[in-house]
Amino acid sequence: MLVAKVVGTVVATVRSDGIDRPTYLLVEQCDTHGAGKKKHLVALDTVGAGPEELVLLSQGSSARQTAVSDKRAIDAVIVGIIDSVEEEGRETYRK
Amino acid sequence: MLVAKVVGTVVATVRSDGIDRPTYLLVEQCDTHGAGKKKHLVALDTVGAGPEELVLLSQGSSARQTAVSDKRAIDAVIVGIIDSVEEEGRETYRK
Amino acid sequence: MLVAKVVGTVVATVRSDGIDRPTYLLVEQCDTHGAGKKKHLVALDTVGAGPEELVLLSQGSSARQTAVSDKRAIDAVIVGIIDSVEEEGRETYRK
Amino acid sequence: MLVAKVVGTVVATVRSDGIDRPTYLLVEQCDTHGAGKKKHLVALDTVGAGPEELVLLSQGSSARQTAVSDKRAIDAVIVGIIDSVEEEGRETYRK
Amino acid sequence: MLVAKVVGTVVATVRSDGIDRPTYLLVEQCDTHGAGKKKHLVALDTVGAGPEELVLLSQGSSARQTAVSDKRAIDAVIVGIIDSVEEEGRETYRK
Repeated sequence: MLVAKVVGTVVATVRSDGIDRPTYLLVEQCDTHGAGKKKHLVALDTVGAGPEELVLLSQGSSARQTAVSDKRAIDAVIVGIIDSVEEEGRETYRK
Repeated sequence: MLVAKVVGTVVATVRSDGIDRPTYLLVEQCDTHGAGKKKHLVALDTVGAGPEELVLLSQGSSARQTAVSDKRAIDAVIVGIIDSVEEEGRETYRK
Repeated sequence: MLVAKVVGTVVATVRSDGIDRPTYLLVEQCDTHGAGKKKHLVALDTVGAGPEELVLLSQGSSARQTAVSDKRAIDAVIVGIIDSVEEEGRETYRK
Repeated sequence: MLVAKVVGTVVATVRSDGIDRPTYLLVEQCDTHGAGKKKHLVALDTVGAGPEELVLLSQGSSARQTAVSDKRAIDAVIVGIIDSVEEEGRETYRK
Repeated sequence: MLVAKVVGTVVATVRSDGIDRPTYLLVEQCDTHGAGKKKHLVALDTVGAGPEELVLLSQGSSARQTAVSDKRAIDAVIVGIIDSVEEEGRETYRK
C-alpha cells in the first residue's frame, strides 16, 4: 500500500461506477514523514478519513475488496487511517 | 483514479476488443488545476465526456467493471465527469 | 490503453504460455503523432498488425480478455490498429 | 517480485481491510546489494520478517494469494525472507 | 511482456508463496539489444532459463497463468526464452 495524505475532494455527478453517493478524496503520495510528493490520485474513502490525515491506499483489483467498492470501477481506495509511522527506530509521523 | 483531460479521439476499425462501436477518447493526465502533464492514454468513454472536460480514469481490471467494458480487453475507462476539485480549502477546478 | 508502434518481432520457442504459434511483436510506446518514446514492450498480436503501424495496447489482466490470450500468461496484447488520432482539433496521425 | 528492505512499521487502527491484527511493515525498495532506493511501500507481513531484512514483495492481485490476505484490500505482501542474492557470479547479499 | 536478462539467483527459504522448491531468478530489464537498464526484478522461472539469456517476463495476474504459479503469490514469471529480436529490419539479438 502507499502512504498518502488527504488534501481535498473531487465531485463528479455524472458517473458510471454504480456507487451511491461515493466520497472521492484527493490524496497526495507522501514520504514517511507525511511530506507530499506532488503526485495526486483520487481515491474512494471507506474509513471516514479527514483533511491532512495520512492514509493507507490500496490500488488495482485490491481496491475492490471492500464492501462499498466490490465489483465497482474503482482502482484506488483508502483502506486505513495511519496512527503512526516508525522508520529505523524513530517515529516519523503521529496523527 | 487519475484526473485526466479529454483532448481528442482515436479511431480504430480493426479491433479484437469485441465492443460494438466504442468511443475511444485520447486523454491527458492532469494536475489538480487541469493542466496537462504530457502523458496520454486512450480510454473507453462510458459517460459521454466532451472535449476539455476533466474526467476520472479507472485503470486495470477495475476498468472492466462497467456494463460496456465487462469482460473486454479494455484497461482504461472514463468513469466520471469531474464537476469540481477542491485542494487544501481552495477550488482548483470547476467545470 | 497505450498508443504504440510496431517496430519488430520477437521469437521464443521455449515458452510456458501455452499459446500455439503466437505472434509476438516488439512495440514502442509513442506520442500522439506516432513518434517513439524509446520504451519497448513485447505484445501478443491479435489483429494482424504490420510494421510501423500504430496500435492500441491493452495491458494487465485486460490483456487476457481476447480469444487467443484467454487464461494465458500474457500481460500485453495488441487489441486494435489505429486508423487516426485527433488531438485538440487537429489530426496528428493517419494510417 | 521486488527486493525490499524492512525499515519500519505502520500502525492504523481505523481500517476497512477486514484483517484481524495485521502487521504492516514499512519497506524500502532495494538494489541487489540491499541499498535503499528511497521508494517506500507499506506491505502486509506474512512471514515474520524483521528489521533490516531483505524480503520478496508481491504486489497487485498476487498479493491476495496468501491465507491471511485472501480477498482482502491488500496490494502488497511480503512473501519471503531473502537468504542470499547472487548476481553475475558474485554474492551481493547474505542474511 | 518485458524483455529481461537473467543475471542471478535469489534464495529464500522462509516463504508464504506455497510453491515447492521454486527457482527465483534475478532478472534485469533490457533494451532490444540485451543491454541492461539497471532495473532488477525477481521472477519465478518456468522455462529453465540460464544465465545471460534474454527472457520474456509476464507480470501481475498474468504471472499466475502457468501450472506452477497458479493461485500463488507470484507477480513476475519468466514465460519464454528469447531466441531472437528483430527491430526495424535488423536483428538486434540472437541467442
